[in-house]
Amino acid sequence: MPGIFLENVRKGSPLIHNITNYVTVNDVANIILACGGSPIMADEISEVEEITSICNALNINIGTLNERTIKSMFLAGERARQLGHPIVLDPVGVGASKIRSETALSLTEKVKPDVIRGNVSEIKALFLGNGSTRGVDASISDFVTEENLPQMVDFAKKFSSKTGAVIAVTGKIDLVADDKKCFVIRNGCGEMSRITGTGCQLSGMIAAFVAVNSSEKTEAVAAAVCAMGLAGEIAFSKMKAGDGNSSLRNGIIDAVYNMNGDILCKGAKYVVE
Amino acid sequence: MPGIFLENVRKGSPLIHNITNYVTVNDVANIILACGGSPIMADEISEVEEITSICNALNINIGTLNERTIKSMFLAGERARQLGHPIVLDPVGVGASKIRSETALSLTEKVKPDVIRGNVSEIKALFLGNGSTRGVDASISDFVTEENLPQMVDFAKKFSSKTGAVIAVTGKIDLVADDKKCFVIRNGCGEMSRITGTGCQLSGMIAAFVAVNSSEKTEAVAAAVCAMGLAGEIAFSKMKAGDGNSSLRNGIIDAVYNMNGDILCKGAKYVVE
Amino acid sequence: MPGIFLENVRKGSPLIHNITNYVTVNDVANIILACGGSPIMADEISEVEEITSICNALNINIGTLNERTIKSMFLAGERARQLGHPIVLDPVGVGASKIRSETALSLTEKVKPDVIRGNVSEIKALFLGNGSTRGVDASISDFVTEENLPQMVDFAKKFSSKTGAVIAVTGKIDLVADDKKCFVIRNGCGEMSRITGTGCQLSGMIAAFVAVNSSEKTEAVAAAVCAMGLAGEIAFSKMKAGDGNSSLRNGIIDAVYNMNGDILCKGAKYVVE
Repeated sequence: MPGIFLENVRKGSPLIHNITNYVTVNDVANIILACGGSPIMADEISEVEEITSICNALNINIGTLNERTIKSMFLAGERARQLGHPIVLDPVGVGASKIRSETALSLTEKVKPDVIRGNVSEIKALFLGNGSTRGVDASISDFVTEENLPQMVDFAKKFSSKTGAVIAVTGKIDLVADDKKCFVIRNGCGEMSRITGTGCQLSGMIAAFVAVNSSEKTEAVAAAVCAMGLAGEIAFSKMKAGDGNSSLRNGIIDAVYNMNGDILCKGAKYVVE
Repeated sequence: MPGIFLENVRKGSPLIHNITNYVTVNDVANIILACGGSPIMADEISEVEEITSICNALNINIGTLNERTIKSMFLAGERARQLGHPIVLDPVGVGASKIRSETALSLTEKVKPDVIRGNVSEIKALFLGNGSTRGVDASISDFVTEENLPQMVDFAKKFSSKTGAVIAVTGKIDLVADDKKCFVIRNGCGEMSRITGTGCQLSGMIAAFVAVNSSEKTEAVAAAVCAMGLAGEIAFSKMKAGDGNSSLRNGIIDAVYNMNGDILCKGAKYVVE
Repeated sequence: MPGIFLENVRKGSPLIHNITNYVTVNDVANIILACGGSPIMADEISEVEEITSICNALNINIGTLNERTIKSMFLAGERARQLGHPIVLDPVGVGASKIRSETALSLTEKVKPDVIRGNVSEIKALFLGNGSTRGVDASISDFVTEENLPQMVDFAKKFSSKTGAVIAVTGKIDLVADDKKCFVIRNGCGEMSRITGTGCQLSGMIAAFVAVNSSEKTEAVAAAVCAMGLAGEIAFSKMKAGDGNSSLRNGIIDAVYNMNGDILCKGAKYVVE
């Protein structure tokens, strides 16, 4: 089932406007290209409304936000909202500083993203309106586990209901929820957390998937999450002695590049709760 | 013939000042190192004149321009012009926003770059003084084809005459023109467009090639364009099952690293019109 | 002996706050992850004090400094100093512009870094309070050689005494000195200078090593320098025909990922003077 969403990206070749951090931006651009989309990065205040107008979706990532780019995030977000373009919010490190929390909360309220993707700590921090995160990593007490799965699924659905956004909570087990259903996804491998930016890359891919599958947003987000996890599995399976996180990073992008609907359908591991 | 221009880069080890976008900057630095140059990235207003003074060429790329860096582009550009240092302008996305168009046009007029490199959409947008581009990609109607080649060669020569710059139009077929002659280059492979930043990387290499071959600018630019395309071919020929755009990206930089004058001479595919 | 310092990073998983340049930031993040640390990049003035408070060490790199980020460097640095968090300063290109020299000198005096790492030109420029560097590379007259080793060791010790910082001078021969002793390290390979950011990556690793080994700072810095050089040797030994600086870059990060205390102990090549 998720294969068609990837095929639609390859057919539609959506143009994705990214306002994102300078740490992982190159990987975000390359993975958007790998899945069939076309990235443009632009964060100058005076141009972001024009740029987002010519794009098919907007990906806002607050990883290295600053006063200037925060203004751009709101301007681009509001324009995309007016135009009905899908918006993805990646609230990197929300809870780690006042300005991250305020920005992420305010974007959630005013820009009304179609999708919010983060690790459990970030999604919880956003839900609670504050909180603490260990930088960009999920703290141990905040993992989704087989034991706390029913509660976490419930939480994701509730947060989706509250925000109107599809909620993607990624970690060992990934959740993709709207207010009625939740995809529980078991693709991926632990070594992906040893690469910077797999979350940022996923958010970029989600924007591409949602841009061309807007009538089935939750399913499209779930397909992107499966695709990223499956790419991690494929890349991990090809690692040779001596390979490490840099090889894995390259391998994941390559695996997305070579993925088609059939591979994704066969490799996707999810149930709907 | 183009081999000597590469050998001169390896001998001269020119220092290249880059004011460039944060998306592809790491690849630009690594490819400048791969071809024998030495990169320095600096965009702070108060230092760019000093920095460009100690360098051998300046590479201006507007990919993620902002109000602050635009000022730096003009300051560095004017200083480089005064000092007679070669200047390359890469007008990324010109036509996609008012500020990109204004900046690229104004840089062309005031800084008088020695070389302007872009895809057809960008070069056309700059020529027309406005226009529309699909982000950083050439739109389909804007390809240089075997059919429209005579007109495009003529256009490139005319634009060179108008601006005084060597014009490099890159795509499936690449053109490098001054007002009298045009190199028509058929190196490269289509998969290069699935990597972010091959254009930016080429602009960085062009700056290195022109820095040490200033008496034969057009030929030196053509040699850099051949080298980049040939590197793409070499890297593509080494791709194994499962490899994708990330492997190809690494392979291109590696191929430049291993290229010498002899390899470039044998692999360069061009005619002069 | 140096192995234990790496093992402590893997056990302690320190969170490292990086205010660094946008050229090599991705590699810095990935190598910190590779050695067992956890990176966070944040340079917004209003948040850097909060961010550095939740981290275990601070890495300040002036590679693409600007007016805004300079303020962040001082704010974060002063907060880290108050909290007793180890601070690493990488004075990239000091001597190449007035603002780089002023910023590096002032950070050295006011923030009082625990470690300063640079190439000989940079360390000399910082010592002299001004000077000239060829961008980010050591100029030839500024190499540490077997012939001038006694004088350079003496210089490094004196500069450590003057600043109170452990001084790491990297190049063909690396020196890591406090006021009493100096590690002379002969790991590494010349090809590392053909990759952008090996120095920046090392500074990030040093921050991770010092964060969890604060009672033996000089030894911990020396261990990180050995680890980086050894990773270069391992990666270089795996290069195949056609591989270049991009493969080497990936290989170095992979080698750090796979390094353990035993490998580091066996591969470290140093004497103490």
